Amino acid sequence: MSDRKITRADLAAAAEKYKNWGKGGSADEIGTLNHTHPEDIVAAAQLVRKGKVISLALNFDQHGPQGAKSKHAAMGRINPVHTMLRTGTDAYSGVLDHRGIRSADDMVVMPLQCGTQWDGLGHIFYENWMWNGYDCREVTSAGAKKCGIEKTKNKMVGRGVFLDVPRALGKEFLEDGYGITSADLDLTAKKQKVEVRRGDYVIVRTGQMEQKLNAGSWDGYPGGDAPGFAFETIDWIQRTQLAALASDTWGCEVRPNQSEPGIAQPWHWITIPIMGMTMGEIFYLKDLAEDCAADAVYEFLFVAPALPITGGVGSPINPLAIK
Amino acid sequence: MSDRKITRADLAAAAEKYKNWGKGGSADEIGTLNHTHPEDIVAAAQLVRKGKVISLALNFDQHGPQGAKSKHAAMGRINPVHTMLRTGTDAYSGVLDHRGIRSADDMVVMPLQCGTQWDGLGHIFYENWMWNGYDCREVTSAGAKKCGIEKTKNKMVGRGVFLDVPRALGKEFLEDGYGITSADLDLTAKKQKVEVRRGDYVIVRTGQMEQKLNAGSWDGYPGGDAPGFAFETIDWIQRTQLAALASDTWGCEVRPNQSEPGIAQPWHWITIPIMGMTMGEIFYLKDLAEDCAADAVYEFLFVAPALPITGGVGSPINPLAIK
Amino acid sequence: MSDRKITRADLAAAAEKYKNWGKGGSADEIGTLNHTHPEDIVAAAQLVRKGKVISLALNFDQHGPQGAKSKHAAMGRINPVHTMLRTGTDAYSGVLDHRGIRSADDMVVMPLQCGTQWDGLGHIFYENWMWNGYDCREVTSAGAKKCGIEKTKNKMVGRGVFLDVPRALGKEFLEDGYGITSADLDLTAKKQKVEVRRGDYVIVRTGQMEQKLNAGSWDGYPGGDAPGFAFETIDWIQRTQLAALASDTWGCEVRPNQSEPGIAQPWHWITIPIMGMTMGEIFYLKDLAEDCAADAVYEFLFVAPALPITGGVGSPINPLAIK
Amino acid sequence: MSDRKITRADLAAAAEKYKNWGKGGSADEIGTLNHTHPEDIVAAAQLVRKGKVISLALNFDQHGPQGAKSKHAAMGRINPVHTMLRTGTDAYSGVLDHRGIRSADDMVVMPLQCGTQWDGLGHIFYENWMWNGYDCREVTSAGAKKCGIEKTKNKMVGRGVFLDVPRALGKEFLEDGYGITSADLDLTAKKQKVEVRRGDYVIVRTGQMEQKLNAGSWDGYPGGDAPGFAFETIDWIQRTQLAALASDTWGCEVRPNQSEPGIAQPWHWITIPIMGMTMGEIFYLKDLAEDCAADAVYEFLFVAPALPITGGVGSPINPLAIK
Repeated sequence: MSDRKITRADLAAAAEKYKNWGKGGSADEIGTLNHTHPEDIVAAAQLVRKGKVISLALNFDQHGPQGAKSKHAAMGRINPVHTMLRTGTDAYSGVLDHRGIRSADDMVVMPLQCGTQWDGLGHIFYENWMWNGYDCREVTSAGAKKCGIEKTKNKMVGRGVFLDVPRALGKEFLEDGYGITSADLDLTAKKQKVEVRRGDYVIVRTGQMEQKLNAGSWDGYPGGDAPGFAFETIDWIQRTQLAALASDTWGCEVRPNQSEPGIAQPWHWITIPIMGMTMGEIFYLKDLAEDCAADAVYEFLFVAPALPITGGVGSPINPLAIK
Repeated sequence: MSDRKITRADLAAAAEKYKNWGKGGSADEIGTLNHTHPEDIVAAAQLVRKGKVISLALNFDQHGPQGAKSKHAAMGRINPVHTMLRTGTDAYSGVLDHRGIRSADDMVVMPLQCGTQWDGLGHIFYENWMWNGYDCREVTSAGAKKCGIEKTKNKMVGRGVFLDVPRALGKEFLEDGYGITSADLDLTAKKQKVEVRRGDYVIVRTGQMEQKLNAGSWDGYPGGDAPGFAFETIDWIQRTQLAALASDTWGCEVRPNQSEPGIAQPWHWITIPIMGMTMGEIFYLKDLAEDCAADAVYEFLFVAPALPITGGVGSPINPLAIK
Repeated sequence: MSDRKITRADLAAAAEKYKNWGKGGSADEIGTLNHTHPEDIVAAAQLVRKGKVISLALNFDQHGPQGAKSKHAAMGRINPVHTMLRTGTDAYSGVLDHRGIRSADDMVVMPLQCGTQWDGLGHIFYENWMWNGYDCREVTSAGAKKCGIEKTKNKMVGRGVFLDVPRALGKEFLEDGYGITSADLDLTAKKQKVEVRRGDYVIVRTGQMEQKLNAGSWDGYPGGDAPGFAFETIDWIQRTQLAALASDTWGCEVRPNQSEPGIAQPWHWITIPIMGMTMGEIFYLKDLAEDCAADAVYEFLFVAPALPITGGVGSPINPLAIK
Repeated sequence: MSDRKITRADLAAAAEKYKNWGKGGSADEIGTLNHTHPEDIVAAAQLVRKGKVISLALNFDQHGPQGAKSKHAAMGRINPVHTMLRTGTDAYSGVLDHRGIRSADDMVVMPLQCGTQWDGLGHIFYENWMWNGYDCREVTSAGAKKCGIEKTKNKMVGRGVFLDVPRALGKEFLEDGYGITSADLDLTAKKQKVEVRRGDYVIVRTGQMEQKLNAGSWDGYPGGDAPGFAFETIDWIQRTQLAALASDTWGCEVRPNQSEPGIAQPWHWITIPIMGMTMGEIFYLKDLAEDCAADAVYEFLFVAPALPITGGVGSPINPLAIK
């Protein structure tokens, strides 16, 4: 992409070139998730050879990334607030015994994108449109009437491919501002002897999260500078026909973004509303990276069901790599 | 069990007989989930033959079962409250453009057990103890320090077995108050030509939820009378060495419960804190039932990752049967 | 008003006739609250003769009116959910002692208009305008940038006048659908030997809430049929120059509303955005009614501070009549 | 108090000496609020001479003190999260018109003690007791069955007395760790020509909050070092028979506290559960301080109604000084 800034004209051209609207029918609400076919799921299941389950989720708690120092306003995102409705201390105190059972119960208040999560197709708009040409006014204070995350409730199962870009580039982690190119992705796949195919769930490591965890501070993580996908990777995404793409950063896309003033996150402008691509963010990839490095197997069965919160534009998840 | 009421002495005897404490080591926090071994997961993956994913979750929204009329106080359980932090109408109104991106974002307030869910091992106490002999005071207003649901983050994957009891008994659904016996479970398995094995995730249909959905009202569902597991099935559970057990009712166990005054949900007293069994409730089983009836295959790969909410005593889930 | 339905043309005419925009300056955000002058507050304080404080609030809890049966969708309004962050049972269990203090703490999740409350001036729009001609797009998912309830933080103090309409009309309560007229208000004031003056906080009883409390059910209360202000009272409001108006119903205005299809709550269309009138709803008036009937004094010092929630379009309150 | 550390024996002695249990009857749940008599309220109203209302509340929003750096764990306290249920942007987008009215609505999630607030009598325990000798187990996960904040719903009205300690001591503000003594309070009252009497609401300025506001950072405020009441002031409180005491700090009491290890906030141990004193914290006192310095009048009508959240152990408030 060189140093040239991405302009609105570039975005309009990209929108024209990569627009997938209507390809899944005028009523489609799940976009690239359609790329995974039943036979792909059958084949993905065959990849389970060790019986090992690796969670790609951060725990959801007050130690999450929200609230850390950032260039970017939090816009209402907080870490999960977990409160109890009944407790073991209530039980111990005898105050529950009139009910004939000693139980604990609990509640959570959480932004759907506060931690490890899917961005749904209602999350980003291109001008007044959302995925498949739906009017952005379908997403009101009452939630998303189109493209709600609940529409994906029986998706998010397929072949997972892990691309450990820093390892392929001989680095411990990618630097903030490093834009991962299509060539980087191809090189990584080649070095790892794995191929990205139609319908895959592709998970890309930058190492940024591990840097933050090692530092003991999330400062700079939520909305800050980060390594991530360069704008040009939209072509790679279109070409590979992947089902969904995820990374270990706050927003997948390289930051600062390569765009002229007035445009933030240009890759998001195209990937979600124009291409219909579901995106995973804040994935915890350390354990997966270690396991893949150890057995040199970078493909697996991937299962990461969204919570079907009606009208949700995202969902907290516990994605599983099953090897 | 006849008509004899279950007494405290019965519970004490059952606690003695079925106590699994220490079997997974003194530090164990996941109980029967340990019954699933890596080779079981490999074998379960082989059950994926059609590439069909069936969600067993109700959508999480204001139409959920909480708030319906009940004999049982709601104790703070409400349906999920989904609110937006940014919307497509904000986008349309131009008020987001200063940020350079048009996006929607959202939040949820939800009891962890308001809909389709896992009961974690911190959910029920036997006197002052929780699973594995931990002190119930480990579950405070700050959450569960032991047996938090986050301890299961890389579990909940294995062979799923579906037992459609009403179908096996030639009924559309089981009546409220019907106690499912061990013999019923064995009969159902036999009729379905499926066998329950060590480490399985066993999902049992009563048909009650479908009755409520057909009636267009959840009245009587949360905490009300229901068909469900008879107390004696604790023996069946111990014998089969299942990993977890789930059903389509509010609380798995038959209600009214077969116990003397002062004891409610006696089956819970034993299954969770004494046996260490994870329990799934409010599973939506209509689609699975139809699919299994159609292809006569009652086993599949089951994946139902808990959200790792630190210290949680339960988790909302989107359980998947992958056939 | 006769039986003629209120039309859009009527609303446009009323908007023209009663528009107070600009009267408090182009930067005004509090409307009729400006009608109370310092000397009115001094005079109102002189009305404190018994030293008796009467709360006009319902308690905020799960027994509130939200969730009751209604013709009207709840649109996200729930009763308050009060959860504990620390408890006396934690204290008793000894789990807090490492902190050197035994304390309880708590949290609430509540719609700002779930119980006794002020409607702020950001609550209702007339076409694309809010009070004083501000653009309705000033109220986004990030809250109200204009007319937020925090702008009233040092208001809501003045002379309170209580109008017990059913008592004046010789009834126990007004029937649902009864439209209180300007003549009713004048008659009530006259019978009670009290006069409504510029800057007053006028509190009007219908008796409906007491009917619901007596019945032990809120069914029909939130958004249902109710006695309340007839559309014509906008003239009375303008003439009296009151500061704010409150009642014991869900929405002050008579329901069903006297309007043609496509218009709901026509009185709201005018009172809030056109006249700039703050409105109090779900006031508990039984105790005040009894006290006023007993001492025949229908005026008092009224203090009902809003919680200054930045950008709020309403506020839960505990209004006090001090006699 | 010299440098001698407060010991458990000191606390036991103080508990013995200052215990007010039973003085308001065995059923009392409001403690020192009883000190204000009707005639005090009548007299306090006479103090309204200018008709000026001064709010002592911080706005409730994301800029509040929670989440700032602190020595003290936040224990679940967050700043208020205000979300919208309907917006002006929804209105503008036309998506509300099917309802016949264009309205906005909103919700808040907030710890009851996240900002300007009353500590209720259920907030602190002395060993296993709360105010008036109630068992601490009356405060469970279901809230406070005794001494809930709703019991104060028609209190919090009386004579307010403002003590501007730094001004009396010739300072801009008191330093962190400065323990305000009874002599300081008496001196301040004397210099201000005001007397503290039975039933007063006494509001004491340290200036700490203004320092934080000036610095543009709350770091160190929530749970950090602070000026505040020395332990010995419990004697002054008992002697003056005040109704309630408030300050502009996070916790009223001087920090670090003057106690031996294992005791934090010793003044709280006695004032709340033993003496039954309601306490106001995080009061915004800058405007009041300026007004009192200007007119040399340090007494006024004080009205600060708690939100009657059933079972609450505190309440957010908007306290008003009416002069």
